[in-house]
Amino acid sequence: MPLTADPERLADEAFAGNRRALARLITLVEEDRPGAGGVLAAAHERRRGAYRVGITGAPGAGKSTLTDRLIAALRERGEEVAVLAVDPSSPFSGGAVLGDRVRMQDHASDRGVYIRSMASRGHLGGLSAAVPKVLALLDAAGFPMIVVETVGVGQDEVEIVEAADTTVVVVVPGWGDGIQAAKAGILEIGDLFVVNKADRLGVAEAVADLRAMIEMGGDRPWQAPILTTVAAKGAGVLEFLRELERHRSHLEEDGGLDERRRRRRRGELAAALRAAAARRAAELYDSPEQIDLVSLVESGEIDPWSAAERLLAG
Amino acid sequence: MPLTADPERLADEAFAGNRRALARLITLVEEDRPGAGGVLAAAHERRRGAYRVGITGAPGAGKSTLTDRLIAALRERGEEVAVLAVDPSSPFSGGAVLGDRVRMQDHASDRGVYIRSMASRGHLGGLSAAVPKVLALLDAAGFPMIVVETVGVGQDEVEIVEAADTTVVVVVPGWGDGIQAAKAGILEIGDLFVVNKADRLGVAEAVADLRAMIEMGGDRPWQAPILTTVAAKGAGVLEFLRELERHRSHLEEDGGLDERRRRRRRGELAAALRAAAARRAAELYDSPEQIDLVSLVESGEIDPWSAAERLLAG
Repeated sequence: MPLTADPERLADEAFAGNRRALARLITLVEEDRPGAGGVLAAAHERRRGAYRVGITGAPGAGKSTLTDRLIAALRERGEEVAVLAVDPSSPFSGGAVLGDRVRMQDHASDRGVYIRSMASRGHLGGLSAAVPKVLALLDAAGFPMIVVETVGVGQDEVEIVEAADTTVVVVVPGWGDGIQAAKAGILEIGDLFVVNKADRLGVAEAVADLRAMIEMGGDRPWQAPILTTVAAKGAGVLEFLRELERHRSHLEEDGGLDERRRRRRRGELAAALRAAAARRAAELYDSPEQIDLVSLVESGEIDPWSAAERLLAG
Repeated sequence: MPLTADPERLADEAFAGNRRALARLITLVEEDRPGAGGVLAAAHERRRGAYRVGITGAPGAGKSTLTDRLIAALRERGEEVAVLAVDPSSPFSGGAVLGDRVRMQDHASDRGVYIRSMASRGHLGGLSAAVPKVLALLDAAGFPMIVVETVGVGQDEVEIVEAADTTVVVVVPGWGDGIQAAKAGILEIGDLFVVNKADRLGVAEAVADLRAMIEMGGDRPWQAPILTTVAAKGAGVLEFLRELERHRSHLEEDGGLDERRRRRRRGELAAALRAAAARRAAELYDSPEQIDLVSLVESGEIDPWSAAERLLAG
């Protein structure tokens, strides 16, 4: 039976558990097609408060493998999980098209797992505007846990993982000296640190470096634990899941979860405003009456900043 | 003698070679303080067409060391050079504050070298809006070559290096298999590839991987060369400079340079429009009459996307 093209009915089907409808619904919202606003409002109505785990780290740290093992551990308990893999350097969005996702094919036939990839390009207003929308759909579709996995370098990507309930930072042994660490920046946002590929040399140093940096942050209600894993062999994954849950309990008990989520919604509003403004900018740029000004900028006769002021002044 | 606070006079001093004035002028423009528009227009008037080299690659690839050696090679010939180091993960902008810049202290007392760091955070409209402004100032200040160095992962950063006249992609041996390579995306934009740390194992494989990928792109007027360097020891740096210049000559001779620069100015206009629109979004978000709507979003009573629509509708 073909899927309906009506956004409202598509949303009903997706939120009732139809995975194909969910995939189409996400595309509809990602591309901001007609009806997207209504779908998001409906998803908000149907929200169930999924727990969001952000996983970040440099390319090659093994985030995908760790996520893969986390999925397997959750599935053994019968829990459903959705994964949103954000790849800022890929030109592709959609199903499991990213390279790393190849390893997740094991879960492809399991309808308790939903994996979606998302790329940076083509999202007006940036990923930080688009990702929360997709997360709202996955929440309404009933997944009790959503993992957002991203390469943690750009501003957008940091904002995305920062908006998770629990943020996991994955590093590997030999990931660099103090200078590199200070550069990383993402360290400030970790609730949990994982030294993956811990069968390599330099694990103790990596752990000690992380500990020193965490301690520089002083006394806090939550001291971020440092775990070691060999995700490729499944080692340390259950401990990882246990620590995730310990952080969750901590947030739920001291009320930090509510505050995080309030802050997140505020961030989502700011991102939504930015995206709407970016759309307006794109419209201005493409408007036919402005073509002359654009060619003056191209030829260097007028500087782009003065031209932008003129365009905005109408 | 204290520097003037008048933007116009500050610009005159900076463009006449006063480095302290230049530093202050850049800050003024970065922070979009009053007079910034006029300064940019003046810089545009005084433009000299500096050659822009973009250097990108993953963290730890040795971009800073390579840049450092490139500076030294240019200085030996008596050529002046400016470096703009863009670090999307750092919360700091300003002078040589970034970790990697520690290594560049050798050049700190040489007024033929100007090094400036720039961070992502706090730039409304993204780095892709702010970087071209700083480059315009460095151009007007008379540097014949400007190196823009950035971690090439986020969309902003890719846009920045893409806007250079020559784009250099730095990798290291063992940088990953085909899957990682396809993920990288930045490969499409390289005019020159450097396999740095070429005293490690896996150089031949890295070169072969790159070559295979470049060849997949088919016949092109410019076949991107693949160089090997050990920047930390200075090995291969002169060859690197030679290939940079060969690419420059290629662009100058076949007219590609003009087309690149036209495209770049178009991109700068689009970024300027986005930045102006983002400022508008921030104003909306901060406007006192909207506080009520923000708290409704925080508490989850209304979804952020509907709220954004309402705010924009006024």
